[in-house]
Amino acid sequence: MSANWGHHIELSLFGESHGKAIGIIIGNLPAGIQLDLDAIRKDMKRRAPGQNKMSTQRKEADEFEILSGFLDGYTTGAPLCCMIKNTSQHSKDYSYLKEKMRPAHSDYPAYVKYKGFNDVRGGGHFSGRLTAPIVFAGAIAKQLLAKEGIQVGAHILSVKDVKDERYPVNVDGDYLSSLASKQYPVINEEAWANMQAVIEDARLHQNSVGGKIECAITGLQAGLGNPFFDSVESHLAPLLFSIPAVKAVSFGDLDDITQSLGSQANDELYYDENKQVKTRTNHNGGITGGITNGMPVVFNVSIKPTASISLKQNTINVKTQENETLEIVGRHDPCIVQRAIVVVEAMAALGIYDMMEGFK
Amino acid sequence: MSANWGHHIELSLFGESHGKAIGIIIGNLPAGIQLDLDAIRKDMKRRAPGQNKMSTQRKEADEFEILSGFLDGYTTGAPLCCMIKNTSQHSKDYSYLKEKMRPAHSDYPAYVKYKGFNDVRGGGHFSGRLTAPIVFAGAIAKQLLAKEGIQVGAHILSVKDVKDERYPVNVDGDYLSSLASKQYPVINEEAWANMQAVIEDARLHQNSVGGKIECAITGLQAGLGNPFFDSVESHLAPLLFSIPAVKAVSFGDLDDITQSLGSQANDELYYDENKQVKTRTNHNGGITGGITNGMPVVFNVSIKPTASISLKQNTINVKTQENETLEIVGRHDPCIVQRAIVVVEAMAALGIYDMMEGFK
Amino acid sequence: MSANWGHHIELSLFGESHGKAIGIIIGNLPAGIQLDLDAIRKDMKRRAPGQNKMSTQRKEADEFEILSGFLDGYTTGAPLCCMIKNTSQHSKDYSYLKEKMRPAHSDYPAYVKYKGFNDVRGGGHFSGRLTAPIVFAGAIAKQLLAKEGIQVGAHILSVKDVKDERYPVNVDGDYLSSLASKQYPVINEEAWANMQAVIEDARLHQNSVGGKIECAITGLQAGLGNPFFDSVESHLAPLLFSIPAVKAVSFGDLDDITQSLGSQANDELYYDENKQVKTRTNHNGGITGGITNGMPVVFNVSIKPTASISLKQNTINVKTQENETLEIVGRHDPCIVQRAIVVVEAMAALGIYDMMEGFK
Amino acid sequence: MSANWGHHIELSLFGESHGKAIGIIIGNLPAGIQLDLDAIRKDMKRRAPGQNKMSTQRKEADEFEILSGFLDGYTTGAPLCCMIKNTSQHSKDYSYLKEKMRPAHSDYPAYVKYKGFNDVRGGGHFSGRLTAPIVFAGAIAKQLLAKEGIQVGAHILSVKDVKDERYPVNVDGDYLSSLASKQYPVINEEAWANMQAVIEDARLHQNSVGGKIECAITGLQAGLGNPFFDSVESHLAPLLFSIPAVKAVSFGDLDDITQSLGSQANDELYYDENKQVKTRTNHNGGITGGITNGMPVVFNVSIKPTASISLKQNTINVKTQENETLEIVGRHDPCIVQRAIVVVEAMAALGIYDMMEGFK
Repeated sequence: MSANWGHHIELSLFGESHGKAIGIIIGNLPAGIQLDLDAIRKDMKRRAPGQNKMSTQRKEADEFEILSGFLDGYTTGAPLCCMIKNTSQHSKDYSYLKEKMRPAHSDYPAYVKYKGFNDVRGGGHFSGRLTAPIVFAGAIAKQLLAKEGIQVGAHILSVKDVKDERYPVNVDGDYLSSLASKQYPVINEEAWANMQAVIEDARLHQNSVGGKIECAITGLQAGLGNPFFDSVESHLAPLLFSIPAVKAVSFGDLDDITQSLGSQANDELYYDENKQVKTRTNHNGGITGGITNGMPVVFNVSIKPTASISLKQNTINVKTQENETLEIVGRHDPCIVQRAIVVVEAMAALGIYDMMEGFK
Repeated sequence: MSANWGHHIELSLFGESHGKAIGIIIGNLPAGIQLDLDAIRKDMKRRAPGQNKMSTQRKEADEFEILSGFLDGYTTGAPLCCMIKNTSQHSKDYSYLKEKMRPAHSDYPAYVKYKGFNDVRGGGHFSGRLTAPIVFAGAIAKQLLAKEGIQVGAHILSVKDVKDERYPVNVDGDYLSSLASKQYPVINEEAWANMQAVIEDARLHQNSVGGKIECAITGLQAGLGNPFFDSVESHLAPLLFSIPAVKAVSFGDLDDITQSLGSQANDELYYDENKQVKTRTNHNGGITGGITNGMPVVFNVSIKPTASISLKQNTINVKTQENETLEIVGRHDPCIVQRAIVVVEAMAALGIYDMMEGFK
Repeated sequence: MSANWGHHIELSLFGESHGKAIGIIIGNLPAGIQLDLDAIRKDMKRRAPGQNKMSTQRKEADEFEILSGFLDGYTTGAPLCCMIKNTSQHSKDYSYLKEKMRPAHSDYPAYVKYKGFNDVRGGGHFSGRLTAPIVFAGAIAKQLLAKEGIQVGAHILSVKDVKDERYPVNVDGDYLSSLASKQYPVINEEAWANMQAVIEDARLHQNSVGGKIECAITGLQAGLGNPFFDSVESHLAPLLFSIPAVKAVSFGDLDDITQSLGSQANDELYYDENKQVKTRTNHNGGITGGITNGMPVVFNVSIKPTASISLKQNTINVKTQENETLEIVGRHDPCIVQRAIVVVEAMAALGIYDMMEGFK
Repeated sequence: MSANWGHHIELSLFGESHGKAIGIIIGNLPAGIQLDLDAIRKDMKRRAPGQNKMSTQRKEADEFEILSGFLDGYTTGAPLCCMIKNTSQHSKDYSYLKEKMRPAHSDYPAYVKYKGFNDVRGGGHFSGRLTAPIVFAGAIAKQLLAKEGIQVGAHILSVKDVKDERYPVNVDGDYLSSLASKQYPVINEEAWANMQAVIEDARLHQNSVGGKIECAITGLQAGLGNPFFDSVESHLAPLLFSIPAVKAVSFGDLDDITQSLGSQANDELYYDENKQVKTRTNHNGGITGGITNGMPVVFNVSIKPTASISLKQNTINVKTQENETLEIVGRHDPCIVQRAIVVVEAMAALGIYDMMEGFK
């Protein structure tokens, strides 16, 4: 299954970077949900390109059109199809991408898999642009979760070697909201200044950097998830690894739990003054035995440096079958970490909503 | 879905640590496959407890009985059910586990989820013992993959802060086989001596340690996998996160790809002397755009320190609803990394076999 | 997917007629359900062979053993594995089944599919014997449904050309219970006498007969099901067609709805004296637009005449590759309709329970 | 799952009768397939309304737009999204449908399920109009199957009590093609004349009629399908029952197999002069034990009389909560059997293609 996902919710993703449109179908939504379209647009804007020199200069309005499943402001219960027309396809020549395979991109494996018939313009179906409809779907999932007191938020944990702070152990929805109101959500504002410098340096050197995004989900009851194949980690991980450029997923609030002793990694349980069960630390990220324990679910993902760089690179030409050099022209992001934050939130929201099997 | 897994292969896992039996059904296997039962037993022995002071002293023969799907040495094509009877259930009193929740275990979330009806003896269905049937299934998957020239192997990458070396960039099946013949597969033998010391130290202090396991899959053609929801990473990750104690999964051969610049993380493509496409480095772990590129698939998982430690710990008593202390008695592993190697291999083999949609 | 089924519940079926054991795993059951094992045994006895001359004389106790997921009388929430050991495998020579393909059986297609490696003894995995674990699972589903006021019952609608009456339009749980208390549930007792005569006649002529089973599910609220791919009909049909020998499934209480005019087939809606919505007739079987309308769900399945008959038949010998004659020896059912009633109930109960996505 | 379907292929259906657009995503298609768009249009025209007085006078061009997955005449391997804009939505008042529930329609169960938020205009998402994108997808599946020598064809088996003949036992692709070239495929042309008279009579009386459609799939090898939950019957049935108005599905070429003796229903196997395995009759419809036996797969579906009739009917008003009468105005089909033929073919083609797990 590549384009479809979901055990309860039903996602189906389509589109290519320079085709007519991209979009998503979201099936099995409850009927009668009033959608806040402005909140959706706000999330989509957080992901959209062209906002500053840290991201590609491709200008896409990313205006979505809802084709079905939505009437007079409310969901109808039928599959909701969202379409986003592509408007800024450049007419430039992409034919070199048919021959020269960009390193660390899908180009070569896609060439083999699709026997050369895949749409290579702008990465085609593999483009990060496909995360726009995912952000759309995630924004709806967030609205559904919020009704149940569940909030999802993410911040930049690091850009290359510049680190932000970690969420506090008892991070709550208010905390996440205040972070989300920032254009570039970091806990430590100084960190962001340094991150910007690192990104700018990469840009000036026609290079790129990556980083980590930490995400928290608050308001979850204990008892969500299952042993083994459908642990919370197992349920969220495929969504997170679906995000282009994510190469690692780590649950808990430690950089590396394997550096701890058991006595350190074992988050002590206690009843707080309200007889609520909590843990003193949250190194297990709110999940033990694959099931939520009532603490915030916390994890981070590693985003590799943007694969598209302007520096000359060695690669193969599948037409000439020779080793050649390549200079990628066009509009690149020296860092996509800041644009990926809302994508991580979307995937987390979709995964958690799916695990909860909807709200009747 | 908790007990069932698979898009092509059909796994269904059952059993509790101290119930009558544990086991697995493996559906959709090809008919007419001659199974090497000795190879399966060998893999199961790699996981089995009671072999030395580094692991629990529970003695379980882990003798499997095949109830169906196997006749006269060959698979019949019908679902293959493997049952392993529990033989070493201690009659000791487990009732304290009904009340005192072990930190970092499934105890508390399971208590909430199952309203106290779950079998708590030895962790019940959450027990690491359930990985025995997974190793059984994985051993079969390995045999199927081997017929196609695909090999799966893993080694200890680290125990706490003691590191082994990384696989060479062009690791092949022979290399994996030679490592697999070691009782404790490490590349650098000296590392293992230091790892043992760390484990022994933890054991003496009634504590525990974790570590990382690196796994490679060789012989894969380019073109396996899909964009987005069914990327190779997305397909393997839920299986890997199903392994008890796994808290992080990282693809590629770097400790942290976010520390690199794009120019470093972009594995250069080249034609070798045989016009085979390869990459100079393998920082993307043989997967770009979610699809294999023909290089070995390489990833590592982080195993947290064993949650069961003998040290006195603070926790809750759900019966008294008070904060209390707990001393876990019984048979513990100060480190399970060495026993988990073959479990990681099994999950990787099952995941890859499933992605290949069987061999006709 | 052949051995696994379920969107919410997780079934996994295994075993061969003359192998060591048959059984089923039932995953995703709620924890804390007290199971009435006697009621399960009673259902299994309704299916069991060897009870009279109308069915095969193979004697199987069909005693089930629960290996997991059940403790001290209650479900634990972990997958429940039920194993039934085969005890009455005859040691006679089945080798002729390797060569001579029984007409209308799985023999020839299975020979091709499994390249001759399938277990042919007694039909192997294709045996009607595999319905024993399905009845076990169905009996549990019935108990779960009964807690919600939902009842499932079936009766013989016809044997060859002898017909029973139809359920009354407002059939309820009490009516189903009273029918279920009969050894051979028919509405019109005289019909049963005639059915017996038809079966006995077939038996004496070494031949066989089939018939129809009508099933009703009462107590369902309106609103269950979905448009298109997951209509109630679409959800139940694959389960019903999984029953060996079922060749047709028909929803509604008419023999052939295509013989009606729209004005006749359109069940008129009305509010009854309690302002309950009902329909005057139930020709749509409680389902319109793929969704329950609050009336009993009613359908019938057609069971073809037992394929195993003693009469000499023409067939092929795949070894000699010649056309030959075959006389099937052994224990046959001249009619399996009466044994299949509880299997139909089981499949219906499992399907409806699955659609309801469990009860929290 | 309501909107998504498929084990190998990935279908996702969206749209409402009077919304902006309807459509379908088809995932997991092979890359590099040259699509014959004219053949697709031809199939869509077979289903389209407004062609004569036997069908609704709504005029819809049903012009499809391919938004993704298709480039320069070939599939790209990415999900193919087909959108069909609605153009003939009448602006008339549909508000009465919010209150008065049309008998035998989805209206009342949908009202309950979606709490009144469903789009009721023209039946909304439940409209037969949603079969247009299914025909689109089916036409592609047919093209894929044809490359493997597999053909799918259907004809009108009956309209009310007027019957066509059955397919010959050795029906082949040529026979199906010649039938398909007819505007109204029947084997016996006289039957069609009588069918038309029955439909016209219903129309004149503001009533409706139904009928049966027989479908054959030729060119299938023996060995496709699985025992139990994924038998060929189980795989096709949910698709067939997804077609609005289908209430029964019957495999084999007999009107009622339960009227036969075993000796009659057991299709004798034989080697023909070319040592091909065949059966003398095809009462099991090319499937025994759930698996194809190499004979044509043959089944028929029962289409109930169109639920929308102009005759005054008794029903409920959910707003007033009173029993009232209803006269449905607008454009109705007195019979949809002739329009449903190509829908049955589409579902059969999609189901078989899915079972074959694609062609590499």
